[in-house]
Amino acid sequence: MGHNFQEIIATINKASKVLITTHIFPDGDALGSQLALGNILESIGKEVFLYGEEEVNYMYDFLPGGEKIKTELPDLDSVDCIVALDCGDQYRLGKAMDRLLAHPMVIMIDHHAGNKEFGNLTWVEPKRAATGEMVFDLATALDAELSSEAAYCLYTAIVSDTGSFKYNSTTADTFRIARELIFKGISPAEVAGNLFDNFTEARLHLMKEVLATLALYDENRIAVIHVTREMFEKTGAGREDTETFINYPRSLGTVKVAVFVKEAENGEISVSLRSKGNGCDVAAVASKFGGGGHRNAAGFRILNQSVDAVRDQVLDEITPAIIV
Amino acid sequence: MGHNFQEIIATINKASKVLITTHIFPDGDALGSQLALGNILESIGKEVFLYGEEEVNYMYDFLPGGEKIKTELPDLDSVDCIVALDCGDQYRLGKAMDRLLAHPMVIMIDHHAGNKEFGNLTWVEPKRAATGEMVFDLATALDAELSSEAAYCLYTAIVSDTGSFKYNSTTADTFRIARELIFKGISPAEVAGNLFDNFTEARLHLMKEVLATLALYDENRIAVIHVTREMFEKTGAGREDTETFINYPRSLGTVKVAVFVKEAENGEISVSLRSKGNGCDVAAVASKFGGGGHRNAAGFRILNQSVDAVRDQVLDEITPAIIV
Repeated sequence: MGHNFQEIIATINKASKVLITTHIFPDGDALGSQLALGNILESIGKEVFLYGEEEVNYMYDFLPGGEKIKTELPDLDSVDCIVALDCGDQYRLGKAMDRLLAHPMVIMIDHHAGNKEFGNLTWVEPKRAATGEMVFDLATALDAELSSEAAYCLYTAIVSDTGSFKYNSTTADTFRIARELIFKGISPAEVAGNLFDNFTEARLHLMKEVLATLALYDENRIAVIHVTREMFEKTGAGREDTETFINYPRSLGTVKVAVFVKEAENGEISVSLRSKGNGCDVAAVASKFGGGGHRNAAGFRILNQSVDAVRDQVLDEITPAIIV
Repeated sequence: MGHNFQEIIATINKASKVLITTHIFPDGDALGSQLALGNILESIGKEVFLYGEEEVNYMYDFLPGGEKIKTELPDLDSVDCIVALDCGDQYRLGKAMDRLLAHPMVIMIDHHAGNKEFGNLTWVEPKRAATGEMVFDLATALDAELSSEAAYCLYTAIVSDTGSFKYNSTTADTFRIARELIFKGISPAEVAGNLFDNFTEARLHLMKEVLATLALYDENRIAVIHVTREMFEKTGAGREDTETFINYPRSLGTVKVAVFVKEAENGEISVSLRSKGNGCDVAAVASKFGGGGHRNAAGFRILNQSVDAVRDQVLDEITPAIIV
């Protein structure tokens, strides 16, 4: 357990009103953890406020309780503590950051490696596969019986952040918790279906367009795909629809680094980088463009350049960075 | 446990020489279970023969011990028993079926629903996610310590047959066993990488071609993709490369039934059908074409027809079979 775990439990136990938030552009772990903790704290008699900068994206509208997440902050003086989940740094709190951090009791719970700690009580465990695992531990320590809704949200959090138990982060503990959640009545196929089989037709058409851009470089060790404004317009799909596309170039056996160059509606270009194993430190590559991330997953944004120009610059940086 | 479990354990304990086989066109569960059981029986002092109709497909050549699977049968009079793993019926044994079934002690271990039992001692558990789970139970009952190689093979078997813990068949028991296998040193990311990120360039190009054929029917409830001889020739990919492609049309949120029409090199057409939940009994659809399968996964073969003609006939049968 983290340094402040017992203090966090004591602080939550003492509180009557708790605000729970998570990072902007929340993924399944962020939303699943937030909704689960809300449900857990309500079950032990707390008054709970759930805050998010935007309403829940359609991809996660299957999560029970999503409508409880409000895009307006309540009067923060009236809450006893704020819990920030799954935020690697304070900027991930979004527009409300300053107001949230002005509160005298901000509890920060996260599993990201390289977490830049903020808040008054922090619990960071980079070896955990998902913040959802940590919320499961919280429920146990708070003597809260998990409802089937909370279990559903935590199971979703874990499946989402491990790519369904495929990533490096998956541990024996992940399977222990998954098993406990199954006993609460979770259907793995239902959650997986909601997370992975929820493609809209527009999204599948966009995927066809994007896959057609696949190009290989450096003896097939680098795979690049891209998406343009025109493709979004043609298919009617949106930026959120591209979320998992980088897994396709990454899935090539010979590929050490996969690159996804995305042109947004406003012409801004963002680049996602993924590497396998020790093949390349893509965080170091991203940092040359003012971005960052982890060894195997990183990214950056760039303005006023074409897709082709960005790709060429990225290739120039990646090629020497690959470890054979 | 199945009816004959104790007798199977006693028979294996008594045996000195055991032949282990599995079904033709073996998948990850078939090969993983076969190799794991071979390793387990060797660890308790048995002489083991592994038989397969063909050498291990390149997609599974990461499994430790694959080179031990021989395409020639040994003298069957010299073996004390034959174990057939993961075979839903005797025809899945392939060309050696008659010779294998002539042996006085054939043990059949399988998890397929609708298994058509054969052999002298049978153990069928349709609720198990993979035959690999049952081999794990065998190892426990035989008091065999699992080697890391056997654990790797069993973990692969389970991940392969559950789509990485995504299918309906995944149970609390599946997670219990996965956790035990992790303790033997398995890296989930390594197995997942070997199973899911092993695309050849030819395979990814074929995927692009096949996805481009996506067509939707019946208010987007039916999605059809197809592959032609020309696509195989153009990309250099083979039939085995198409294995998971049907998951893409299936992944559309509106789709109740996904259809994959495959034209083989010899002009024979095979059709795979997948449905979700209770939306359509595709086994009933397949049976109209002389095929079969399960409610959610079925298929059939057809000769001397064009891809277009087959698609039209299949659509005519599926449309009335969909339950809204």
